[in-house]
Amino acid sequence: MKIIIVGASGTMGKHLISELEKDHEIIKVGSNSGDIQADITSPGSLEKMFEKAGAFDALICTAGPTYVGPWKKMTHTEFRKGIEGKLMGQINLVLIGQHYINPKGSFTLITGELAYEPQLNFANASAANGAIDAFVRAAAIELENDVRINAVSPTVIENSPQYFPYFPGDIPVTMKRLEYGFRKSVFGSGTGQVIRIH
Amino acid sequence: MKIIIVGASGTMGKHLISELEKDHEIIKVGSNSGDIQADITSPGSLEKMFEKAGAFDALICTAGPTYVGPWKKMTHTEFRKGIEGKLMGQINLVLIGQHYINPKGSFTLITGELAYEPQLNFANASAANGAIDAFVRAAAIELENDVRINAVSPTVIENSPQYFPYFPGDIPVTMKRLEYGFRKSVFGSGTGQVIRIH
Repeated sequence: MKIIIVGASGTMGKHLISELEKDHEIIKVGSNSGDIQADITSPGSLEKMFEKAGAFDALICTAGPTYVGPWKKMTHTEFRKGIEGKLMGQINLVLIGQHYINPKGSFTLITGELAYEPQLNFANASAANGAIDAFVRAAAIELENDVRINAVSPTVIENSPQYFPYFPGDIPVTMKRLEYGFRKSVFGSGTGQVIRIH
Repeated sequence: MKIIIVGASGTMGKHLISELEKDHEIIKVGSNSGDIQADITSPGSLEKMFEKAGAFDALICTAGPTYVGPWKKMTHTEFRKGIEGKLMGQINLVLIGQHYINPKGSFTLITGELAYEPQLNFANASAANGAIDAFVRAAAIELENDVRINAVSPTVIENSPQYFPYFPGDIPVTMKRLEYGFRKSVFGSGTGQVIRIH
């Protein structure tokens, strides 16, 4: 299977590559590294990325920039970080990628439990996650040629200890459990699913 | 109670005004009509609107522009309609309005059942609604001085028959039921709630 991984240089991306490259052809996409460089906030950059990558069977996105900070002082320009990054960036991957993906292919986006269980300072991520969750349900009934779409929704991840203090009471998710979520989406048969990992 | 209604010239806005103006001071905000004109997609315009309106007890938004059309042909610029309108427009109302609202005041946003029950051609509204749903849960724990925030989530509305063919099997919501949703948010004590009307 030919799999594009967007966010290849991040913690999640690296882990997935190390596990999946044994059995699959992986196209690594990063902002400044990987097989192809792309800016997730630029539709033009994503179009070029898909042209270089060519037809593919699965796209996994692990890149979801958002703004972290208290709501009281937040400006609309700061709130844009998650809107342009995790939200529109990922939606554009599907909007543009639908014209390059093989029949029976799949898109797997990254979302998060903050959509349901908010934490202080993460309103921007909550909004982006909620949009992605609803979007995969909607896109699942629009995509043709048996193309599927799901999102993986973890709480705080074990490899991001800098976030632990913001998630009191949340048991950090292991990279292995997170990997299983992505495997369920890519190799399973579900569509329009938010795969919750916690 | 001093209540700002954004979307005053729309079907929902007009109904709410006719019901609420008997007992409350209503500030009507429309894009081209009302007591104050404002462009929901412009943070600068919203800032001026709040300056003119002054301190208030409740804000109701019934304005939520989105793009309707099939996903297969949709462009990222078309998808922007709901992102700049129903999503960022409403979030900016809260982001800016938090500095003008009275203690114990409330924000009530408009979302919709498309977040959970998608229909063909409405992926843009689904994404915007999902963002608003998650956002009110997140903003509810950030807002101070006992300020509350909720969203009202109807399916197709009786006064919009042009949309009935797109919502097979959905029983149109009466304006009276919708009004009750807004009343629950404004005059009740809940916060972080998505008030589902169907």
